[in-house]
Amino acid sequence: MIWQKELTLPPYKRGFHLITRLVTAQLPVLPDTGLLNILIKHTSAAITLNENADPTVRDDFERFLNVLVPENHPLYVHTDEGPDDMPAHLKASLIGSTLTIPVTNGRLNLGTWQGIYLCEFRNNADPRRLVLTVYS
Amino acid sequence: MIWQKELTLPPYKRGFHLITRLVTAQLPVLPDTGLLNILIKHTSAAITLNENADPTVRDDFERFLNVLVPENHPLYVHTDEGPDDMPAHLKASLIGSTLTIPVTNGRLNLGTWQGIYLCEFRNNADPRRLVLTVYS
Amino acid sequence: MIWQKELTLPPYKRGFHLITRLVTAQLPVLPDTGLLNILIKHTSAAITLNENADPTVRDDFERFLNVLVPENHPLYVHTDEGPDDMPAHLKASLIGSTLTIPVTNGRLNLGTWQGIYLCEFRNNADPRRLVLTVYS
Repeated sequence: MIWQKELTLPPYKRGFHLITRLVTAQLPVLPDTGLLNILIKHTSAAITLNENADPTVRDDFERFLNVLVPENHPLYVHTDEGPDDMPAHLKASLIGSTLTIPVTNGRLNLGTWQGIYLCEFRNNADPRRLVLTVYS
Repeated sequence: MIWQKELTLPPYKRGFHLITRLVTAQLPVLPDTGLLNILIKHTSAAITLNENADPTVRDDFERFLNVLVPENHPLYVHTDEGPDDMPAHLKASLIGSTLTIPVTNGRLNLGTWQGIYLCEFRNNADPRRLVLTVYS
Repeated sequence: MIWQKELTLPPYKRGFHLITRLVTAQLPVLPDTGLLNILIKHTSAAITLNENADPTVRDDFERFLNVLVPENHPLYVHTDEGPDDMPAHLKASLIGSTLTIPVTNGRLNLGTWQGIYLCEFRNNADPRRLVLTVYS
């Protein structure tokens, strides 16, 4: 069995956002044993798994990533699309754009504290698109 | 064919540890052609592929990651669980929590120098759990 | 259906290189719905998805990663293979060595601006090998 759906997320402001429920609401009845692949179809946003409970974790992600990959670095040449653009590309590849998550007993088999984050690195991005693929 | 197993690793101290043999010892007879997916069910540890021979590589990983993502950064707000906690979350998303590795002729098709690392970012973590899924 | 091929890339100099067409030229007729997994079988190079249009993005990646993960850091112990070696291992795990990309209607379902990058972190590397696996 293979199932696939393309999904447009609601718009999010720059930062890290929990989208686990939004993703699982799109899924079909899941198999006993399988996998879910997620791709984000963009080069200035990312997806990752991280802590799903305390919003200060997500705020610290936004703050720290901005220090790790600063805007207006004197080495950047690709600056035509604004100071948030090249850092967004760099962050996207540091965090990643695909995830593959096991399905067990008809549910995503994540750890208790794991959730799916949308990482929005642009100041004013259009809504982001994901491709969800379930196979078993 | 799809096969899945959840595995609790032995406890590891903070640092980077080769777990290739531990993982392969859990696998069934592997198909001629397939894939192995690994998820680590935690938000303060990670898994990655890297050099499997010289332990100083793994020590340098621990030392450098602690410089890249320092403890006690003045921007961190999520500090209730100790100075190693927020850096552990950040490192987990920079390194990643899922891997999908090809299986060829009944073996993991890794490069000669590639091994699977468990990256333990907490000082005193409980044993970590992985989900292994083989499909073909 | 599962299909797999091992591929040796042409040699690339240190830096970030678009290899989307090189990869897709190796693929069989793709299924209506499926996935493509890519592994790079090396610990001093990486693969990622990022901007496929402006070469200055790839140049900025090379420049910025060299600042993020500097050569000759006083903490490195693993230095026998030259100043570019330990940084290459670190970059490889920060960027990643596996990707899983959806296939839709017989094509890779990437975003308009997404391409596959080979990230070459060594000064004088031998040609790099990828494993491509398509399943549906």
